[in-house]
Amino acid sequence: MTNGRDDRIADGLPVTDAATATDIVDPGDVVLVSGFGGVGYPKRVPEELAQDDRDLSLTVISGGGVGGEIDDALVEADQMARRFPFQTRAVSRAAINAGDVAFHDRHISRFGDEVRLGDFGDPDVAIIEAVAAGKDWLIPSTSIGHTPSFVAAADRLIIEVNRQQPRVLEHIHDVYQRDLPPNREPIPIEGPVDRIGSAAVTFDGEKLAAVVETEHPDDPYDFREPNVVDTAIADNLRRFLEAEIGRNPTLQDAVNLQFGVGSLGNALMGELSEINFGDREVVYFGEVFQDGLLDAIDDGLLSGASAASLALSVEGQERLFEDIERYAEDIVLRPADVSNNPALIDQFGVVGVNSAVDVDLYGNANATHIGGTRMVNGIGGGGDFNRNCRLGIISVPSTASGGDISRIVPTVPHVDHTEHDHSVIVTEHGVADLRGLCPTERMDAIIDVAHPDFRADLRTYSDRALEGGGHVPMSTDSEFR
Amino acid sequence: MTNGRDDRIADGLPVTDAATATDIVDPGDVVLVSGFGGVGYPKRVPEELAQDDRDLSLTVISGGGVGGEIDDALVEADQMARRFPFQTRAVSRAAINAGDVAFHDRHISRFGDEVRLGDFGDPDVAIIEAVAAGKDWLIPSTSIGHTPSFVAAADRLIIEVNRQQPRVLEHIHDVYQRDLPPNREPIPIEGPVDRIGSAAVTFDGEKLAAVVETEHPDDPYDFREPNVVDTAIADNLRRFLEAEIGRNPTLQDAVNLQFGVGSLGNALMGELSEINFGDREVVYFGEVFQDGLLDAIDDGLLSGASAASLALSVEGQERLFEDIERYAEDIVLRPADVSNNPALIDQFGVVGVNSAVDVDLYGNANATHIGGTRMVNGIGGGGDFNRNCRLGIISVPSTASGGDISRIVPTVPHVDHTEHDHSVIVTEHGVADLRGLCPTERMDAIIDVAHPDFRADLRTYSDRALEGGGHVPMSTDSEFR
Repeated sequence: MTNGRDDRIADGLPVTDAATATDIVDPGDVVLVSGFGGVGYPKRVPEELAQDDRDLSLTVISGGGVGGEIDDALVEADQMARRFPFQTRAVSRAAINAGDVAFHDRHISRFGDEVRLGDFGDPDVAIIEAVAAGKDWLIPSTSIGHTPSFVAAADRLIIEVNRQQPRVLEHIHDVYQRDLPPNREPIPIEGPVDRIGSAAVTFDGEKLAAVVETEHPDDPYDFREPNVVDTAIADNLRRFLEAEIGRNPTLQDAVNLQFGVGSLGNALMGELSEINFGDREVVYFGEVFQDGLLDAIDDGLLSGASAASLALSVEGQERLFEDIERYAEDIVLRPADVSNNPALIDQFGVVGVNSAVDVDLYGNANATHIGGTRMVNGIGGGGDFNRNCRLGIISVPSTASGGDISRIVPTVPHVDHTEHDHSVIVTEHGVADLRGLCPTERMDAIIDVAHPDFRADLRTYSDRALEGGGHVPMSTDSEFR
Repeated sequence: MTNGRDDRIADGLPVTDAATATDIVDPGDVVLVSGFGGVGYPKRVPEELAQDDRDLSLTVISGGGVGGEIDDALVEADQMARRFPFQTRAVSRAAINAGDVAFHDRHISRFGDEVRLGDFGDPDVAIIEAVAAGKDWLIPSTSIGHTPSFVAAADRLIIEVNRQQPRVLEHIHDVYQRDLPPNREPIPIEGPVDRIGSAAVTFDGEKLAAVVETEHPDDPYDFREPNVVDTAIADNLRRFLEAEIGRNPTLQDAVNLQFGVGSLGNALMGELSEINFGDREVVYFGEVFQDGLLDAIDDGLLSGASAASLALSVEGQERLFEDIERYAEDIVLRPADVSNNPALIDQFGVVGVNSAVDVDLYGNANATHIGGTRMVNGIGGGGDFNRNCRLGIISVPSTASGGDISRIVPTVPHVDHTEHDHSVIVTEHGVADLRGLCPTERMDAIIDVAHPDFRADLRTYSDRALEGGGHVPMSTDSEFR
């Protein structure tokens, strides 16, 4: 055990190597890891846990998506028995769908409380990536996610201080730690990029069991370039938003936007410059900060951005790090229970755009399970935004599998977002504005944005459903299942 | 037109009779009516509108359930073309299910904003029942519901001053009116029965088009006596809550409870006295105040209650009115966007108990549509509480139709509350605590609370589903549809 010796690791901390730190983790432990949007997660200790001789059978809990050092390595080594509430890796996804790893996805905004209250087992160890640490504090790296809740919940704490992540990330952080109900206060934020916290997560120093030094970069998402369908969706969205801005009294002075994670979300963010916002202030209030937003900040189109993760590409991270003090004037990184907070999403009248696997003629959306059975990533923050946004928009290409499958279906095989939640569905073929429509009117509006190749089949379904009658006409003809 | 002359109607108001007041309503109008929980709705003007010679084709919008003077009379007279977002009458239900009245149900907490922003058409006239009115204020009667939002949204205002409702109802009201996003502030309530508003709803006096005097009583819900199944559910709930109180740190000092509307909810409220809360403060933070709560207040079991409606029986109303100043020390009546506010439900760590039509093996709940097609009442506030409660509980009898049909089904035909929302399902056969369980574990837990007569069939479904594999195993065998 050595002592720290610079601005990264304070004197007197229990510095050790990753292999030794694994002693702090016992078989059957509930392990909470930092990380959100595929960045800011611990790398070295999970890799060593994957090599451990013991049968660990861990429950692994993250705030959001993490890298292969966790979701590939621990799964391949058969050390992960349970996993909550979100993952994005092919290896973990396959294990979950094979039934080898137990999994359930939860709403991000509520997940920190659920972990603190032991809903997934009594939390044993938190493994947190930081850019600096002291005896009772740490400064998170490229994501904050649920780190404050996890540090509060766990009995023991391992910090990975990553020297590859710049110390100056502290400028961007706004860590606000909430009390548990029933004594918590409203989050005291008046504007979407207000700062109310500090750079550091604090904790009871008795918990700190090990500090490990690393220099491993994040392995963040790699976004594809926008394709012709993305661009057509973005164009439909632009026209819809420009019309809405012209009539909606909540959008007269400012437009607070959120886009979901992913290539389509990133493409939509990149298209922001095409939208005529007039002289309105435009602010991003979402859960992840993706590359497309850097351009919008640099172009002066966005006056600010709030998120829980810097889910940037490697190039995007470099660009941000090079000029971080300037970016920190406009960008605020927050805990996920603040970035995704229902009250704040409502308070700021956020316009949210989130994707889905498929959407049905009643307006229900499946965002998680292909065919209703095969998990993709998890619900993430989609429910937080779809439910609480002033204007919740689902954007989805009208087809999948190269056009062979319609993403507009009679009934979705799994419901993540109900007909009561979001207001609008956008495809490359148009905009279905569902506000004020009854179920039969919704069916017509949604068929109109399906791919033309599938409209006749959907109309046949709808006609048969109408024959059966009822407030929500449905057909149970097996050909549509 | 006469002037007012007592403490009910201020001088100089445009007092008229109900038949004359109908001139203020034009064909095709969007009409907003007060009323929530079946009480506090206007009676005389809707009855006259039903008799109108014109073809009115009205859009009728309430905050919650209203009486037959609206949902029977206007439907029977074929004067109602559209209806949002909740109704409880056999006549309106039949018309909605026949497709004669367009309808869609929305989350109560968000509905006031949606109406103000014109999601259901530009609001023309609000018809509001009051116990007293002035040139720019009114005091609501037995419900507040969405009255503040409706009065703010409508171009013209008709007030029915109901002399049968006691003026002293003002003691119980706490009207807090929110600004629209993006400039609204967090609701400044620290405790569940704090008062932050006033007795009156204020408005732009230019809107006030007519004041009509009435003496018609509410026609409130009539609750049946608890049956053996209700009692068994209440007993399972009691044992679960007592165990939870012993371990959950958010329930150590106070327990903030909500129960859904209905006979089962009322029965559960009545069983409160059976629960051993130790020395904890017990407060009701819900959307309607039902008869069962009066006993709990009188017995000193409840230290307070917050709701948007006094949905009491006639006997319950009499009991409350006789001693209203004393009850007003403990009971607060609020707008529905405060009573059902997601941030407050979260802040107070509410334990919510709501019902469903059926629940599936994955944990999804259908609360609105029998067979997926036939509307019952609407989603109401169930989604507000199930999603935002610290502990969301669905209570449901295991069977319907005298035991012929299982309410625990392989897949619900309509999803109102997803597997991500509530945490617990209670039937008369037990408690399925779903926290931390993966889908296959959930299936086992839910089968265990089904009626014994149906468990073998459900197990057969679950076995076939497991053969198909995937994270959420499903069987599409037609026999289970």
